[in-house]
Amino acid sequence: MLTLHPSGTQSLYQQIIETLQREIADGTLPAGTRLPSSRQLARDLRVSRITVVTAYAELEAAGAIEARGGSGTYVLPPWTPPWPAGTSGETAASPAAPALPPWQRDLVHPGNSEREQMLGHVLRGPLTPDTIGFAWGAGDPRLIPMTEFRRALVDVLDADGPAALGPEGGAGYPPLRSWLASYLRQNGLDATPDDILVTGGTQQTISLVAETLLQPGDRVITETPTWPGALEVFEAAGARVIGIPLDRGGMRQDCLVDALENEQPRLIYTVPTFQNPTGAVMSARRRRALCALAEQYGVPILEDDHVREVRFGQPIPPPLAAFDRRGDVIHAAGFTKSLIPSLRIGYVVARGPLREALIARKRTTDLFGSALMQRALTTFLESGAVARHWRRVSRIYHRRHTVMLRALERHFPSGSQWSGVSGGLVLWVRVPEGLSIAALHDAAAAAGVGFARGAAFFSEPADQPYLRLNFAAVDEPEIERGIAVLGRLAQEQVQRGGLDPPAAHCGRRAAR
Amino acid sequence: MLTLHPSGTQSLYQQIIETLQREIADGTLPAGTRLPSSRQLARDLRVSRITVVTAYAELEAAGAIEARGGSGTYVLPPWTPPWPAGTSGETAASPAAPALPPWQRDLVHPGNSEREQMLGHVLRGPLTPDTIGFAWGAGDPRLIPMTEFRRALVDVLDADGPAALGPEGGAGYPPLRSWLASYLRQNGLDATPDDILVTGGTQQTISLVAETLLQPGDRVITETPTWPGALEVFEAAGARVIGIPLDRGGMRQDCLVDALENEQPRLIYTVPTFQNPTGAVMSARRRRALCALAEQYGVPILEDDHVREVRFGQPIPPPLAAFDRRGDVIHAAGFTKSLIPSLRIGYVVARGPLREALIARKRTTDLFGSALMQRALTTFLESGAVARHWRRVSRIYHRRHTVMLRALERHFPSGSQWSGVSGGLVLWVRVPEGLSIAALHDAAAAAGVGFARGAAFFSEPADQPYLRLNFAAVDEPEIERGIAVLGRLAQEQVQRGGLDPPAAHCGRRAAR
Repeated sequence: MLTLHPSGTQSLYQQIIETLQREIADGTLPAGTRLPSSRQLARDLRVSRITVVTAYAELEAAGAIEARGGSGTYVLPPWTPPWPAGTSGETAASPAAPALPPWQRDLVHPGNSEREQMLGHVLRGPLTPDTIGFAWGAGDPRLIPMTEFRRALVDVLDADGPAALGPEGGAGYPPLRSWLASYLRQNGLDATPDDILVTGGTQQTISLVAETLLQPGDRVITETPTWPGALEVFEAAGARVIGIPLDRGGMRQDCLVDALENEQPRLIYTVPTFQNPTGAVMSARRRRALCALAEQYGVPILEDDHVREVRFGQPIPPPLAAFDRRGDVIHAAGFTKSLIPSLRIGYVVARGPLREALIARKRTTDLFGSALMQRALTTFLESGAVARHWRRVSRIYHRRHTVMLRALERHFPSGSQWSGVSGGLVLWVRVPEGLSIAALHDAAAAAGVGFARGAAFFSEPADQPYLRLNFAAVDEPEIERGIAVLGRLAQEQVQRGGLDPPAAHCGRRAAR
Repeated sequence: MLTLHPSGTQSLYQQIIETLQREIADGTLPAGTRLPSSRQLARDLRVSRITVVTAYAELEAAGAIEARGGSGTYVLPPWTPPWPAGTSGETAASPAAPALPPWQRDLVHPGNSEREQMLGHVLRGPLTPDTIGFAWGAGDPRLIPMTEFRRALVDVLDADGPAALGPEGGAGYPPLRSWLASYLRQNGLDATPDDILVTGGTQQTISLVAETLLQPGDRVITETPTWPGALEVFEAAGARVIGIPLDRGGMRQDCLVDALENEQPRLIYTVPTFQNPTGAVMSARRRRALCALAEQYGVPILEDDHVREVRFGQPIPPPLAAFDRRGDVIHAAGFTKSLIPSLRIGYVVARGPLREALIARKRTTDLFGSALMQRALTTFLESGAVARHWRRVSRIYHRRHTVMLRALERHFPSGSQWSGVSGGLVLWVRVPEGLSIAALHDAAAAAGVGFARGAAFFSEPADQPYLRLNFAAVDEPEIERGIAVLGRLAQEQVQRGGLDPPAAHCGRRAAR
């Protein structure tokens, strides 16, 4: 039956396997055939019995044959590979693609496509070739202190050995928490290392807090507009978002009191310092009032302090949590925006049962953090390099901010509005009513300029007349060039008389 | 009013701030006091007006004073820091600690404390001083290929520059997905790079899949016992776990069919290869049958292929997903157990709407992954060092496995049961009925030996008569010493006659 070629370069064992596989595949050995015993085949082929036993075991492991107790070894029916190669994504709809299993057909993807697309652009980072990346949400990667960070990584690997590549569970690397506690104290927030939990970034913090505190149907207060990643979390938790409009001093207190009175929210999410996307800084007085309201209404506040470190000279109030008398403020921050996106390290200040619940929820979510990244960050922070880095990028981003303001003045159509900011990374620009941001976005993308569409920052999808422009990650000539392109495209829309009539949502916004 | 000391080393600006702060704190300037105008104070103190303006701005930012439009600057009421330092954790119950806010009092922490404690031990890793770490779930960190991994990290930083420290969003770094696709094809699983989504480790994959597919009240089939992290995820999703007992060939098909017929499960979670904790390998025949059942009943399967790479010579079947004809198997794996825990990189093979939903859910969960870690891993994998590493650790762990089996034979009380495994990292040991694992665990911890208690691996908390012992992360003399300690402590319990009568749950298990 089997013919082996002992002169070949293959092992006998491999030859047995391949011959049997071929004969099973071409039907010489149909399903149900009883194979000769290993003893018999070894004799026939003049090989050792262990060679045959091993080959049979391999074929059985691969699902081609099966040993049935004492009754012998049988050929199993053939099986086809799970699906043709390359059926994911666009090709999935091609006629050759297999039908989806029924449980997949029920999977409704509930995303807001405007927001998804915007986040998709943001997450590509600003270094995409041929694009001036005003869409990106963090700082300029070219300013990352590569040399110092590389040194910190290598030092940790050399000094800590295998411990640097182990798990970092629980609340996070203790020396990192110590550094953070002392940093927070400098910012006016009285926290101990035991109050701090290291997370995988602020997005994870928001997600952990929402999963811990919210039930489907709960209401959450946010600023409107706000960070789209937070909106995604609250929607995934089944919560309903109540947006509070902002002025230059932050969340408007009159609307906030109204919502607290009438909506029984379970959480307030706020970005009080260099609000995303507007850049507003909540005044000390409103911070104090917000904490008092949270205490009065018994509602916890999640403070997202995303980019405090980048500021342009004016003093800013201490974090909201510094005004908190009773522990109502959950303070979240991280290093994505002002240091290194790739770290994936954030932290949250929380105490009591909440802290324990967050630690347990984090373990359920991703088991533990990266010891290497936590240790390298600690070494970097302790070296003092971070203070120099923050001073340096604040200086550079401040200049870019000025350049962008001047470019907007020069190039944007009259009726556009914006305000300078005192820190952070982005400007929020309003274009004349009726100008289509969606059309502007497509035209700009074709011209190699990206920006974040305003609609992504609102909980109700609509073509909002806003752009968010990152002035930090783009150098001065790029800013000048990119804003000129955007301004020209916007002017062209205006001149073509292509302004849509004001949309229905404006009335709703005005009513707030 | 104010007296400055220009001879001091402090700046005038700092002196103004501190003097005002002191006078506000000691009541010299009570809340509501109108401060002199900046012009007036500058004249009084003979300093420049900008010095006073800056000091006032700083005090306002700190929430001590407030400028009210044109009407002047006023002292605000004092505020106390949010809570006394060090009130977290054990000291929170001390009389000095402030009362918790009401929303914290409702926070019920729904954990299974046995499981939590076990995971807490596991997550400390095996390198805790003075402990022989049989509790740990991954490999020996001392065998991590430090030199090669360090080189990969440095190469990536040098070659890719800032791009290495940016975001890695979407499905993950394309070259990593290409390597994974070709690795999977070698293992018999026909996947393309577009079918693969890089995650933050298998725990995150389980969590993403559960959040995407499960609603509260849904039923999930798992092996029993199984990985406690998966039980935590399913419980957090509000699902009910239906445990299917195992024999050496994996999940028992009779019980599985019974559950599929009667329970309408929404997901099957299985660890078919070197099952955690039992080490069982599901036979090719059962894999084929399981896929056919999933197809028949329309239930997706999440395959956790956690440690395929560590094997002791016997052939093992291809992944369950290789037997899947229609796309019912979601294949999850990672590098925590057989390479480097600190990477926090896993992957999942999924297509169609599920893949899009998982990408969106991952973005909601943690926004994006670490470009640095994904690139360094890719460089390391492409270097071929990983194949050498897996051969090396398989050889070493195989020897340790033999040493542990011999030590168990020598030291454990008669009536104990265990089976050798053909790969993976752990042994599952049954002690004589009535011996208290909880008592053994405490006594062993006091003697410097850790192990994972069996109860953690069951969905119903109870003192199950099992231990999970990691033979891989502990060297041969430590195994001998550690098993001798455990054996002696178990023998002492037996000799003291301290065996409890068989507990009520045994009947329930027998009835399965």
